Amino acid sequence: MKTPVSEYLAEILDGVRDHDGGDVADYIRELAEADPERLGVCLSTTDGVIYGAGDIDVEFTIQSISKPFAYALALAEHGRDAVLAKVGVEPSGEAFNELSLERGSGRPLNPMINAGALTTHALIGPPGSSAEQRMELFRDGLSRFVGRRLEVDQSVLDSELDTAYRNKALANMLRSYGIVQDAPDEVVRGYTAQCAIKVTLRDLATMAATLANRGIQPETGERVLSVPLVRQVLSVMMTCGMYDAAGDWMSTIGFPAKSGVSGGILGLLPGQVGIATFSPRLDEHGNSVRGVALCRRMSDDMGMHIMSGVSPARSVIRRDRVLRAPGGRLVRICSLQGMIEFSGAELVLRELSDQERPLSRVVLDLRRVTGVNDVARRMLREALRRLRLDDLDVTVVDPGDMIGEVGDDLPDLEPGVQEADDLTQFSEHRRV
Amino acid sequence: MKTPVSEYLAEILDGVRDHDGGDVADYIRELAEADPERLGVCLSTTDGVIYGAGDIDVEFTIQSISKPFAYALALAEHGRDAVLAKVGVEPSGEAFNELSLERGSGRPLNPMINAGALTTHALIGPPGSSAEQRMELFRDGLSRFVGRRLEVDQSVLDSELDTAYRNKALANMLRSYGIVQDAPDEVVRGYTAQCAIKVTLRDLATMAATLANRGIQPETGERVLSVPLVRQVLSVMMTCGMYDAAGDWMSTIGFPAKSGVSGGILGLLPGQVGIATFSPRLDEHGNSVRGVALCRRMSDDMGMHIMSGVSPARSVIRRDRVLRAPGGRLVRICSLQGMIEFSGAELVLRELSDQERPLSRVVLDLRRVTGVNDVARRMLREALRRLRLDDLDVTVVDPGDMIGEVGDDLPDLEPGVQEADDLTQFSEHRRV
Amino acid sequence: MKTPVSEYLAEILDGVRDHDGGDVADYIRELAEADPERLGVCLSTTDGVIYGAGDIDVEFTIQSISKPFAYALALAEHGRDAVLAKVGVEPSGEAFNELSLERGSGRPLNPMINAGALTTHALIGPPGSSAEQRMELFRDGLSRFVGRRLEVDQSVLDSELDTAYRNKALANMLRSYGIVQDAPDEVVRGYTAQCAIKVTLRDLATMAATLANRGIQPETGERVLSVPLVRQVLSVMMTCGMYDAAGDWMSTIGFPAKSGVSGGILGLLPGQVGIATFSPRLDEHGNSVRGVALCRRMSDDMGMHIMSGVSPARSVIRRDRVLRAPGGRLVRICSLQGMIEFSGAELVLRELSDQERPLSRVVLDLRRVTGVNDVARRMLREALRRLRLDDLDVTVVDPGDMIGEVGDDLPDLEPGVQEADDLTQFSEHRRV
Amino acid sequence: MKTPVSEYLAEILDGVRDHDGGDVADYIRELAEADPERLGVCLSTTDGVIYGAGDIDVEFTIQSISKPFAYALALAEHGRDAVLAKVGVEPSGEAFNELSLERGSGRPLNPMINAGALTTHALIGPPGSSAEQRMELFRDGLSRFVGRRLEVDQSVLDSELDTAYRNKALANMLRSYGIVQDAPDEVVRGYTAQCAIKVTLRDLATMAATLANRGIQPETGERVLSVPLVRQVLSVMMTCGMYDAAGDWMSTIGFPAKSGVSGGILGLLPGQVGIATFSPRLDEHGNSVRGVALCRRMSDDMGMHIMSGVSPARSVIRRDRVLRAPGGRLVRICSLQGMIEFSGAELVLRELSDQERPLSRVVLDLRRVTGVNDVARRMLREALRRLRLDDLDVTVVDPGDMIGEVGDDLPDLEPGVQEADDLTQFSEHRRV
Repeated sequence: MKTPVSEYLAEILDGVRDHDGGDVADYIRELAEADPERLGVCLSTTDGVIYGAGDIDVEFTIQSISKPFAYALALAEHGRDAVLAKVGVEPSGEAFNELSLERGSGRPLNPMINAGALTTHALIGPPGSSAEQRMELFRDGLSRFVGRRLEVDQSVLDSELDTAYRNKALANMLRSYGIVQDAPDEVVRGYTAQCAIKVTLRDLATMAATLANRGIQPETGERVLSVPLVRQVLSVMMTCGMYDAAGDWMSTIGFPAKSGVSGGILGLLPGQVGIATFSPRLDEHGNSVRGVALCRRMSDDMGMHIMSGVSPARSVIRRDRVLRAPGGRLVRICSLQGMIEFSGAELVLRELSDQERPLSRVVLDLRRVTGVNDVARRMLREALRRLRLDDLDVTVVDPGDMIGEVGDDLPDLEPGVQEADDLTQFSEHRRV
Repeated sequence: MKTPVSEYLAEILDGVRDHDGGDVADYIRELAEADPERLGVCLSTTDGVIYGAGDIDVEFTIQSISKPFAYALALAEHGRDAVLAKVGVEPSGEAFNELSLERGSGRPLNPMINAGALTTHALIGPPGSSAEQRMELFRDGLSRFVGRRLEVDQSVLDSELDTAYRNKALANMLRSYGIVQDAPDEVVRGYTAQCAIKVTLRDLATMAATLANRGIQPETGERVLSVPLVRQVLSVMMTCGMYDAAGDWMSTIGFPAKSGVSGGILGLLPGQVGIATFSPRLDEHGNSVRGVALCRRMSDDMGMHIMSGVSPARSVIRRDRVLRAPGGRLVRICSLQGMIEFSGAELVLRELSDQERPLSRVVLDLRRVTGVNDVARRMLREALRRLRLDDLDVTVVDPGDMIGEVGDDLPDLEPGVQEADDLTQFSEHRRV
Repeated sequence: MKTPVSEYLAEILDGVRDHDGGDVADYIRELAEADPERLGVCLSTTDGVIYGAGDIDVEFTIQSISKPFAYALALAEHGRDAVLAKVGVEPSGEAFNELSLERGSGRPLNPMINAGALTTHALIGPPGSSAEQRMELFRDGLSRFVGRRLEVDQSVLDSELDTAYRNKALANMLRSYGIVQDAPDEVVRGYTAQCAIKVTLRDLATMAATLANRGIQPETGERVLSVPLVRQVLSVMMTCGMYDAAGDWMSTIGFPAKSGVSGGILGLLPGQVGIATFSPRLDEHGNSVRGVALCRRMSDDMGMHIMSGVSPARSVIRRDRVLRAPGGRLVRICSLQGMIEFSGAELVLRELSDQERPLSRVVLDLRRVTGVNDVARRMLREALRRLRLDDLDVTVVDPGDMIGEVGDDLPDLEPGVQEADDLTQFSEHRRV
Repeated sequence: MKTPVSEYLAEILDGVRDHDGGDVADYIRELAEADPERLGVCLSTTDGVIYGAGDIDVEFTIQSISKPFAYALALAEHGRDAVLAKVGVEPSGEAFNELSLERGSGRPLNPMINAGALTTHALIGPPGSSAEQRMELFRDGLSRFVGRRLEVDQSVLDSELDTAYRNKALANMLRSYGIVQDAPDEVVRGYTAQCAIKVTLRDLATMAATLANRGIQPETGERVLSVPLVRQVLSVMMTCGMYDAAGDWMSTIGFPAKSGVSGGILGLLPGQVGIATFSPRLDEHGNSVRGVALCRRMSDDMGMHIMSGVSPARSVIRRDRVLRAPGGRLVRICSLQGMIEFSGAELVLRELSDQERPLSRVVLDLRRVTGVNDVARRMLREALRRLRLDDLDVTVVDPGDMIGEVGDDLPDLEPGVQEADDLTQFSEHRRV
């Protein structure tokens, strides 16, 4: 059998090939000459398997898709609060090249508009760093997301610098407000180089998968961003990533994404998959026409909208029996299954609280549990503690160590709670 | 055992009781006289169990928390496109009572600002409806979310109407742009009544749980909103629900929510839980100071940030064996478990594609699967079809009918694919 | 002889008759049905003589031309400071129906935009006045400018009220800021009636002439506005009168003016003449296309640009002789002429200061002086005082009492300064 | 006698010396160290006489007061239309360092805000000029207004350039819109040098007097700006010269003026006088606190408000008699006086048109007329032509050639109109 994922991708490519609206960016020659029919889509699983269709190995400049990654590097270097002091996280409702500074402070509203991206770039490396030094730091950081050494398109960089008046205006304005402290022209040079890094769809999908994989690069296994910062980056992508069409994107497609003027879109479903599309025809917001169509199709087909919610986890309790032990005592055996999050744990606790018969023992069977998140783990452990306080014998069957993993802030399992590997000890018990 | 959820809620209430910043709204007497120390938090599971602490049965006026529900009713009445023609979905970056109209069209940027909420209200009921008629329709609709008959606070309504100049200004401006077609004063009257409906935290949590439960009221079991419209409402709450602090909320708390000037906040985690908090002290954005703190605490403790992602579902393949049948033929038995979404299905397909030995039969064991979403279902069925095309015997053990449910657009299981209830037929096979 | 002024006006009317750009206002039926070919121009001298050509007796609604007169009435009723506390005097750079409120205070930027005009209207009469009462007060006030009893066009008024949403929006917004304290709808009713008063070009020219005549109605001789308030009104007309084309008007035409949506323009040259034009075709700013052309032609032909400056008054000293009296003493006789303002008086003082011969007497001959403004009067009197302090006999020949008029703050002529009616006493003196 | 003008200036200086509000500009060291107690006022008559009090010979940098003169040079170099295509004339309602660009075109709203002043500076000299070249051209031009060679304050220039981020931002933004075509940094360098030219109050008063004198430098007699361009410059100063307090200045002071951040104010009354004040304490708009107070005092005392209007010229007809000639024929002798503008000429024409008796001759006596402007000259000549057409003998006594001066577009005096030097020929006539 051949996996149908690639065929699916090829099929949806065909589905958008007749969208001939939009135009390639034309403010520099290199972009204006891009082939408008270039088209590709690429997925990367969180363990690094790549699926693609179309032009997934063609290089193009990363442009604004560099913004969330520069933001990630700045967050990693300075911490969330220091970065927030310079760049906000509020959507601006304005085009990417508007000033959009917070009244009074002069702080750019978010790091996805150019003013915010320039500010973010200037936070990479120590004050006074040269454009080359910042560029190297950024390239090193980005390469860790990608897993290969990336290069700058010198021709695009030169052309961009020739016409970077608007960014120079923004950088000087930011300097006048004291938001940027370095020389504005140097910041623009470095930022422009950041945007001129060449990537392929394969690279973008891998970068996206790294974010989807909670910051761990799927191939190298390297943690390139901490979990809280991944969350910060994705939050800003979600509300500010698609220029002034962020709300429309949220309501129709609904996964965090970032687009670039060269025609790329990078998106992802946290915990699931990284996505990248490429088609240089842009709509009036500066987003790739076919790329948006591809993302919409994938979101619809694959249920990727972040607000879809997973199906209500009603079946987390696989079985809940009260057995009579040979000596006559009553034993309750509650078997869980699947992924347990808050609502699943709540259900378990609710059931365990609702006990009319005088039990002497409770067994929690976690053998079929595939995962437990933090809150659910706390809740289950708290339940075990309370059952124990009720003078019950408590046993947890947890060969996968689902709730036993001890974090910094979690006590060991309560004394008195036994652990077991299987339920064979209860084979003699009878159903009541 | 007593469930610890309520105690947890009581504990976090204590944790915020010393936040004495912020002030009660004072633009009308009734709000100004609200007890600033009122405080409560309430959760509702998607099956309708309520947990609470503090003032969960105190009535207060719903105010802006009515906005997403009016939006839901307008969407249900007119469809998404017709509503979008009147009200956008883009965050405004401005305070709730700013005009924030789209240049040119005069369309309010989103339904969570007052201009958009007035427009939304005017979409309830046929053109020319009176304030009373719209109010009744809204109350009926909202009551279906809550599960009880709600009443208006006439005293608040009267006071609000006495000072509703800003909303009258907005309504007249909208009328001048043709966005609202009804008499502006009548629209303001109806909208003000909508905001003056009295609710308790218990009500709000239930309303939130209905949204979390994909539109099905947990207690009555009634579908009060279709799944696509739930998604639309939640998307707009996510990007525009917390006034001009939407981006901050997104990055720190990260679940869809809506706040009101009387001190309430309604939030939810799709598929999991509905949340409501109440404390009348407001911050400079108009959001409840203690309510925000409570939500942040819950988001942190319970992993409710929408960008957290569920833990990577690596363990969806529980077991994958190749057995030799008594006659010597090779049979592959692949046993899945837990919730299967795209990434899980992808993993299964990847494994099934990677087969070196000459199999004669494949068995897909779904007995421990707790759920399969649409895309995963399609993918698994497509895999079965392809295996069959490879001339393999294909058997699916799916007593819970996890992938057999046939939607409008899904063919029946491929001819040649057998269904089975258990694996006892393979008990004689031996591991290869 | 027939005066050529009317012929001149007829000629310039012909000159603009082929300007067929622009369109009549169409937001209400009555204006939309206005004959676009109506055309007229009218002048009124400051002593009330009317010259006109074209449709000078056709009635149309005054519309925004009422604004400076309402402002005048508000100023007269409350004083400049009280009015400034409610409405500013800064040009807004925005269209007339924009909000254009001062950040923070909510004060409209000036009384010529609608927000400011509504605020101004609400300042006429005591707080709580009804629309009818304010309307009557305004009509009375305006009628004093015009010299006849004006009437409202009820049909226009009714239609305007049917669609006055934008003004209602503005009034409610102003009420929400506390700038307007009366009921917003009542203010809009009164203001709309104010705009629906019917006038002819003859009326407008007379109103303008009253302003040009420093506030004294030319025909009735009644002072209808004090000199300082005339100055205030004209200042605001100059910077804010022509909507968002105020700067263009200033640089090309350069006299204070106000236009209205029905096609009228009222303008004036202070001290000289009142002007009115009428043609309903409007440009994109809302100004009458042909009216602007007429005003430009008149400004060019008649040197009406306020920045043109009068020709330098070099000849104010008609003659300056030193004569020898029969007894041998030297007498200086300085004869002035024309209008004496600062620069003329400065010249006189300069000459009188520059005296080498030992004089015993100075005679200032003012018989040919046609006017002396305040500063020049002060300066000349101060000169006389100083000459007297130099122990000279000083005589002023001032039969027209040009510098002898004693204001509140001017002392009587210095003791020792003689007054004379003619110079016959010096007929025996000989030129030195 | 000593002229009291200087004493008057000394007196008003004393009157403002206790205004200790406001602060010196502090964005560069050189300005921050300015002595806040420096104070001076200076007048220049249109024939070049200087009066002053206080620090009239202290040098300070011209700063924004250079803007109207750069505008004048650009207008002279390119013509009004070409300059208007790059910089508008509308007040912006915003602070001087805001962008204030026209939506769409990117054209700065006026040349008095920094964006407009940068654009204006870039219009001096051919495209591609260096900062030094533009600076030299500007200095040459300004020196012609002043009458001496001006120098740049190199220390101020260096400091300004160190912190010129905001102007660099503006210049780059203008370059991005194509409004400025030269290298933005070079334009900023040149503009900053323009602002760093050192002037004294004596210089500023002379520059102002040149504008007041219709473009002719009072001392050198050189025409440095044409009359229409003087009008253009003064119009823009009137509406945009005092930053965002332009309307307030207009209504309280009312003569065209321009202020600078170093504390200077330059103003003038067209045809009368040039004014300059200096005091480094600035108000919140950036205008000199004491300078504004001085200007207000002078405007009040000297009647300098442009909207004051000259006193109505009622007395232009000095005498109007009908005499009976020895032969019995009737002769009308109309004697005029003073300055004759439109309203005076209109009065004459009106009187001459109103003739009941059968005259045979009309004599117009202009011996006491001190000036006649263009429109009045046309009107009087047209009257003479018409009287002649009525078969009257017409004689004009005009020894000063008041109406005989023939412009390009005026015909010679009508055939049949006699000219005379005196009225002795009528000595035998008798009053009727």
